[in-house]
This record gives sequence, C-alpha cells and structure tokens, in this order.
Amino acid sequence: MSEILIGECLFLRLKQLGIGTVFGVPGDLVEPLGLSWVGAPNELIGAYAADGYARLNGLGALVTRFDLGELSALCGIGGSNCESVPVLHIVGYPTTPAQKERKDPSSYLGGWKLCCATTVLDDPTTTAAEIDMSILVQNSLDACPPSAPESEAAVTTEIVSRLELAKSPILIVSGGAARANWAEHVDPLIQALKIPFLVTGLGKGIADEMSPYYQGCYAGEGSWLRSAIGLVQEADCILWLGNYPSDFNTGIFTEKLDHCTIIDLQRFFVNIGATKYDARINHVLPKLIPALSSHYPLAQRTKQNPQVDQQLSLPASNKIEQDWLWSRLTSYLRPGDLVITETGTAQVGITATRFPSGCHGWTQSVYGSIGYAAGAAAGAAIAAKETGKYKRLVLVTGEGSLQLTVQAFSMLTRYRIVPVVFALNNYGYTIERYFRGWDAKYNDIPMWDYAALFKAFAPDVEPRVKGYKVTTAEELDELLSDGELCDSVVPQCVDMIMDPKDVPEAMRTVFEGKNAM
Amino acid sequence: MSEILIGECLFLRLKQLGIGTVFGVPGDLVEPLGLSWVGAPNELIGAYAADGYARLNGLGALVTRFDLGELSALCGIGGSNCESVPVLHIVGYPTTPAQKERKDPSSYLGGWKLCCATTVLDDPTTTAAEIDMSILVQNSLDACPPSAPESEAAVTTEIVSRLELAKSPILIVSGGAARANWAEHVDPLIQALKIPFLVTGLGKGIADEMSPYYQGCYAGEGSWLRSAIGLVQEADCILWLGNYPSDFNTGIFTEKLDHCTIIDLQRFFVNIGATKYDARINHVLPKLIPALSSHYPLAQRTKQNPQVDQQLSLPASNKIEQDWLWSRLTSYLRPGDLVITETGTAQVGITATRFPSGCHGWTQSVYGSIGYAAGAAAGAAIAAKETGKYKRLVLVTGEGSLQLTVQAFSMLTRYRIVPVVFALNNYGYTIERYFRGWDAKYNDIPMWDYAALFKAFAPDVEPRVKGYKVTTAEELDELLSDGELCDSVVPQCVDMIMDPKDVPEAMRTVFEGKNAM
Repeated sequence: MSEILIGECLFLRLKQLGIGTVFGVPGDLVEPLGLSWVGAPNELIGAYAADGYARLNGLGALVTRFDLGELSALCGIGGSNCESVPVLHIVGYPTTPAQKERKDPSSYLGGWKLCCATTVLDDPTTTAAEIDMSILVQNSLDACPPSAPESEAAVTTEIVSRLELAKSPILIVSGGAARANWAEHVDPLIQALKIPFLVTGLGKGIADEMSPYYQGCYAGEGSWLRSAIGLVQEADCILWLGNYPSDFNTGIFTEKLDHCTIIDLQRFFVNIGATKYDARINHVLPKLIPALSSHYPLAQRTKQNPQVDQQLSLPASNKIEQDWLWSRLTSYLRPGDLVITETGTAQVGITATRFPSGCHGWTQSVYGSIGYAAGAAAGAAIAAKETGKYKRLVLVTGEGSLQLTVQAFSMLTRYRIVPVVFALNNYGYTIERYFRGWDAKYNDIPMWDYAALFKAFAPDVEPRVKGYKVTTAEELDELLSDGELCDSVVPQCVDMIMDPKDVPEAMRTVFEGKNAM
Repeated sequence: MSEILIGECLFLRLKQLGIGTVFGVPGDLVEPLGLSWVGAPNELIGAYAADGYARLNGLGALVTRFDLGELSALCGIGGSNCESVPVLHIVGYPTTPAQKERKDPSSYLGGWKLCCATTVLDDPTTTAAEIDMSILVQNSLDACPPSAPESEAAVTTEIVSRLELAKSPILIVSGGAARANWAEHVDPLIQALKIPFLVTGLGKGIADEMSPYYQGCYAGEGSWLRSAIGLVQEADCILWLGNYPSDFNTGIFTEKLDHCTIIDLQRFFVNIGATKYDARINHVLPKLIPALSSHYPLAQRTKQNPQVDQQLSLPASNKIEQDWLWSRLTSYLRPGDLVITETGTAQVGITATRFPSGCHGWTQSVYGSIGYAAGAAAGAAIAAKETGKYKRLVLVTGEGSLQLTVQAFSMLTRYRIVPVVFALNNYGYTIERYFRGWDAKYNDIPMWDYAALFKAFAPDVEPRVKGYKVTTAEELDELLSDGELCDSVVPQCVDMIMDPKDVPEAMRTVFEGKNAM
C-alpha cells in the first residue's frame, strides 16, 4: 500500500483545485509542498490576503499555527465566511502523539480557557455586582478575605522549621511571584533568608540580581549556568515562589526535582510535602519574613557567589553571537530601566543578562505570542510614567516579531516615550528555523529600515530618531558604551545583524539533548 | 432613586481600583469617563499594551467593539490570562434593544458561525475524505451535482415568461453573483436582457458599468442616485442576482420592496413569488441567457441611460469633498484595474465611482473589519498576476484603516506589486465620529508619512516610491490626470487631506433620515 503524508495529500489537493499560492505566518506549520508560499506580516493580514486571493482565484488558503495563529486570523476568516469567499484555513497542530501527551501547556485551544471570567452587562439590576465579580475573579488575591489565621501561622512555622533543618536550602523565584503584589516581598525575603536564590525565566525582573545571593536563572537543562542546575539538584529544601511549570520556564520540562524537598508557595495555597495549606501567599510572606529574620541563623550556610555572568570577551568570530550578546547587555542596563523582551531566542537569551538593582522587566513566555513586546512596551512605559517611576524603556525584540506589530512604534512616539530598541536581525524566524528547517523560505522575512519606520510613524514628532545598523560584535560593544545611545533624548533603534543559525547555547542544550518537541 | 449609566459605573469602579488609562480601538464603545484613553493601532496591540500596563499597575483594561474587536484581541487576552496578568477586556455591544432586534447582521458572535466547516486532521484513515469534505462545503456549487434538470427548465421558463409580461423589469446584481463563478454570466445576461440594471455595494465590480443599461448603485435610501430608488420602486419585475440583505448593502435596511415583483436567484435555489425552485443558479444562467436572447423582445422597453455620474465640477470649497471625489475617480480608473476599497466612508463612496469595462474590485462590507483592504489588495494582486490578468492595483483606504495593517505595504513591494494607494486622510475615524461623537478624542489617530513608510518597509527595493500630500480638490484633480501617477512603475501614495466631518451625502441620507443604529 502506498503512503502519503497528510500535508502532501492536502497541498496536492489544493494544487489540483487551482491554488498556486498559500498565505500564512510560520509556526509549527506544514510546508506547502508544490505551492508558492507568501508570508504575511501577521495572521490577520494573511487571512485578508487569502481572502483577496480567493475572490479572484476561486479558492484561497491560509496556513497558521494552532491557538495563537488561529485566533489572530479569526477576524479575517469570519469575514471570508460571511461573504462566502472560499478560504481554507489550515491550522498546523502538534503531532497527534504530542497532543495526546499534552506536554506543552501553551499549545491548545480548549486546553486553556481564554479568560478567567466573562460577563455580559445587559441587566441594570445586576450590573454593579457583575462588574465587581469580574474584577474580583481577576484580582482575588487582594480583594478576597485572607485565609484562616491558624493556617497561615501553621505554614509559617513549618517553613521556618524546615529551613532550620536544611543543610543546603535555596530559594527559586518564579512567575507567580510577579503577579498580584508579591513582588514587593521578594527582596525582603531574600535579605531575611540569606541563602542562594535563583530566578526562572518567568520570575526574572522581580528580584535584585545584584544581590550576593543571586545564582542565575534556572530552566532545567536549559539553564545557562550549569552551576544553577547543580544548586537545584543538591538542595535539600527548595522554597519556591510562584512555580509555573510551563515549557520555556522549565527548559522544556527538563527539570530534575526531588519533590519532597519543595515548599511550593502558590497564590491561594502552600504545598509542603503531602500537606496542602489553605494559606494565601500574600498574607503568609509578611509573617514569614520577620519570623525568618529573628529565628533563622543561616549565615553559615551562605555560599560563595559564583561567576553568574557569561562570556564577556568579544567573540572570536566578531559576530554578534547570542552567547556573548546577552551578557554584554548587563553593563548597558541601568537601575530603573524597564526591559521588555520578545519571545523567541531573545526570551531565552535575556535570562543570561543580569539586571541591575531596580531594573524591571519581563517576557511573555507562556503564551509566546509574537509581536507582544512592542505593544507591551508601550503600555508598560505609560504605566511607569503614571507612577512617576519611568526612567528608560529598553525594548529587546526581533525583526520577525516587529513584522506583526511594528505600528506600536507609533504609540511610543505619540505618547512621548523615548525607547531604545534592540532588534535581533537574523534574516527571519531563527527560532522557527531551529525547530524545523534551517533553509525553509517561509521563515525569511523582508528587511525593513526600523529607524526610518520610526520616523515615518511620527514625521512631525520624531524626525530626530537615531538608527544604527551594527554587523560586528566590536561595533556593538562600542555602541553600548556610547553616551549618545545611553543618554539619548530621542528614540534609538539598533538593528543588530546576526547569524541566522545562531541560537543561545542554553537552547541547544535543551533541544539537542532531548530531541523534544 | 439615583441612576448611573453602565459605562459610568464601570469606569468609576476602574478608577477606584487604580486604573488611569484604558487601551483600545474605537468602535461602538463606551467613552471611558474620567480615565485616559490610549488608542492602539490594532486590538492585538491594544491587548498587549493593556497587559504591559497591568503588569506594572496591577490592573489594566482594554476596550474593543464586539465581534471583530473581540476576536483580534483574543491572542492578547489569552496571553494575559494564562500568565495571570489582570486585564479586564470590556467589549462594547450594541444596545440591549438592538441586540434583541438583531437588525445588524454583521454584529454578533454567535449570530454568525465563523466558518462554514472545520475538521481536525488527526486520523489518517479519514484524512483524504475530511479534506475533500471541507473543500466541498466551501465550493459546493461547482463540486456538487447539478439540481434536477426539470427544476432548471421550469425556473428558466418561468423567468422568461415573467419578463415577457413585465412592463418595467430591471436587473439587480448583488454580492452572491460575485462568488462561485457566477460573475462570467453577468455581462452576457445583461446583453441578453437589454433592460436597465443596478448593482449593490456588494455586487459592485462584476458587471460592466459602462454598459448603456447601467443605472447606478442601489442601496435603499442610501443610493447616491435618487433615480436608482425610483427604478426599483417602479419596477414590476426585479431579477435579482445573489441578493444579500446586509446592513450597508441595503442602506441600513431602507429598501422599500414589493416582494411579489422579485425573482430571487440564489446559489442553491430560486424564489419566484411563493415558489421555491431547487435550482442551482450556476446551472440556470447558461440556460437562461440563450432563452432570453432568442425569445425576449425587449428592445422597446430599454430606457434612456440617465446621468449616472455625480458632481464632476470642482467643489466650491476647493476641499476634497466626498461628494466630488468618488465621481472624479471614475475617469482616473482604467480597464483592467483592480480596485480594492476599504470599509468606512470609502465603502459607501466607491459606489458612486463608475468602473470602466474590465475593471474589477470590491470592498468587504458585511463583516467590515477595518484594515482589510491593504492585506486583501496584496492577495488579489498576487492572484491577478498568476492569471496573467494583472494590470494595475488601486488601493483605496483610509488612514484609520492603515493603522491596523500598514505592514501590508511590505507584502506589496516584496512581491513586486506596484500599487497606487489613495489614503483618505480625515484625521481619524470619520465614520466613527459620524456615528458617535464628532470630537471624541479616541477617534483621533497619529499622522503617518505613508510614502516614507512604503520606503522604510522596502529600503532596498522601493527607494523610488512617490508620495503626494494633496489638500485641495484642484491639486487632486490635476494629479489624477498626471502621467506620472497614471503610468508609474513605482508605488505611489496619495495622502488626501479631507475634512474630518465630511461624509458622503448617501450616508447622511440614510442615517439622518432614519436615525437608525
């Protein structure tokens, strides 16, 4: 019996039906064998383009990845449908075995609810209550009553007791700690504990990484520092704030943990061994910190701070290599910086950049919707300005991500935000190339002039925007020390030309060691 | 008892909870009273911005319109949700009475299915069948067997007979005729009929508008030509191809029709009076046309072609007025042009532009998702190039719509499409201003330099792009006759500065006469 792959079968059929070109955005997709591929800047535009194509051609096709791509394309697909324009929306799902295992929590519509509460405000008699209820669900930690005082006391006592018995305790700060006002407790906790601490990718940007207790970022086998892996494996007690075991946060599930050692502090409960305490962490931490300070003699357990910065010398190739870039950024950053980093290789890379005290930032690594950073940066800067804490916005993104949301530059200038934009320009979707197909044409993207775009989005406001195109590590090294880039009062765009096949070593370790995904 | 509006109550509560700024995209929304409004270029960016804001502020809010806005924002909202970032997504719905009436078919998620068929290809044993079934549902007209021959014969006879008896028959070409290969039958039908014909907004761009039988565009009370309304009201037999009674296609349901006069030709059936015939129109038309040509002596019923072009003299104000612009475009267009027009005032306006023979085009007026045209134009041009019929692409859009999808310029240059872009620049969302709030700040948008954007999106490919900013009717009039604009081999961007409060008279007639929506 002869066999045919699903993708082959599908695109062969499309070709027979007169389709010459397939539109879409790369991401877990099947190569449209025998057909032309036209990459669109975003799924919505892709869906619109497929519609336009279909109106003339009689049938059109759009390929997107599952979940994120599906949703962004929906408005285009819905429009095609209700005007009877025949567009076939092909959604690339993970392999069937992978779906059955459901190992990747970022992946499945239906696997996640899209929002935690919805309400329709159509009844004046219940409107006020409905609004409050919706907000309560979102903000329940602060708005709900505290857990039982005896439960909070019990958990505090148990944690102090376990830490006192431990020989090699550590703290890990993860994503949950960044939400709902935990963040303010993190540094005081570290100061009270005086034990080594790690962050995860999701927890980065909360704790003071200049603390002598900082030991780097932990992401299972995807940790940049092997010493971080060692610390976790040797720990006999892990105090874990807001653990969030998503794919990128765990080095694609390559953590090796002894669960008996973990004190798992979550938003609404604390797990210690087999016991689950009904204790709200936001109420526990203010009790735990003074208890630790007064009862917890741990000075003797403090370890020597290892070398947490990576390669600092210029790469021999003089290329802007991932394994050099991220550590180099450390000394560029300043207290007060707001550092918003895009998904992709940047999201892995930034975990190797040590943030100065008072530097805040994040990536969106669970959902991983590309184009996120440029839009989020604008909102974050506006919020920072409102609190009076705004100093400098650093946007670290990729040229592939800017495709989707480059118009966000216009929001920045419109609201008088003066960012420094670092664009990783590796001629396409490197992370996609890495996963499937180094030379797949659909991962190519057109080259844009980012500084010119910045100007064109605000011709009357920001004609002074500065653009730099840097192709060597030496040039970038000099630029990062340059006063004009550091202290500028006009937007700056640094277009960093990188090798399309260069990915952070931490990524290679995970994916090549595991052969996962 | 004191009363408070839902919107007031909501935004007051948000303010109490520490929200200073609400992000969003205008469209049927409630003004965020007492809060700052930050308009985002698209809903996705708006959702991302609200997320960034919420991460710092503790709570963020996004306002979008229902359906389209909701869907485009989903990826942002889903990302916020699965990382526990508290973002409140406020969706502006029509009033509760309007929802109950459901008068606007473009409006409700759940009111429309988003696609006509879905399948999950996870079973190799059914894959081929599933693919075929999905495509069949979309393309059923061509792929399914024809209707019963006796049914087709009966409907053909009945139509010829009714037309022979009629004293003032007319033909109306609507949206259904533009799908599934009907289009090729439309001009032969007109030539066989030799009776006056109208198009609708959805049906525009199919029939030859230079035909002596062409009588303009019909949209109920929203028809530009009062003579079109008269023709419909006086007709004793209306042969209606692909009638699609959506809001903008019917002048917001202001058609006044005697249903007994209508022969309703739809994709899978024909309604004549109370009788429904199981006849596929694509099989009926090839039988009907020769029957009409040989049996149907209608020459005596041919009417004088009225003046179907509108105001051709320059406006006294010398502004680029809507009521002049659209007729002026008629002589700019050429046979073979592909004219893709955006939603908003342009979508209403373009129905007053008479397309030359062989000029093809459309708007997306049912779903009305803004930003559609730029993306669709790229897909359409690529399809036209593949068929060898591509001559010139004319993109008629607004500066508000370009906000969402301006990156589509990059697709054009990347695929060597040389468009002429007409951007209606009226300093914001005029159609939104018209519906609610002339001076609402959220309808303002930043000014961009479109030609500079075009260059910046393709610095190596299209440095020669030509940009024009025209502020008077006289300037535009001259430019439209200019050889460089007409015959250019480089992209051209015409930024047309218009009065923010100028809308086509046809729109005013409908909305001010009806006080609807």
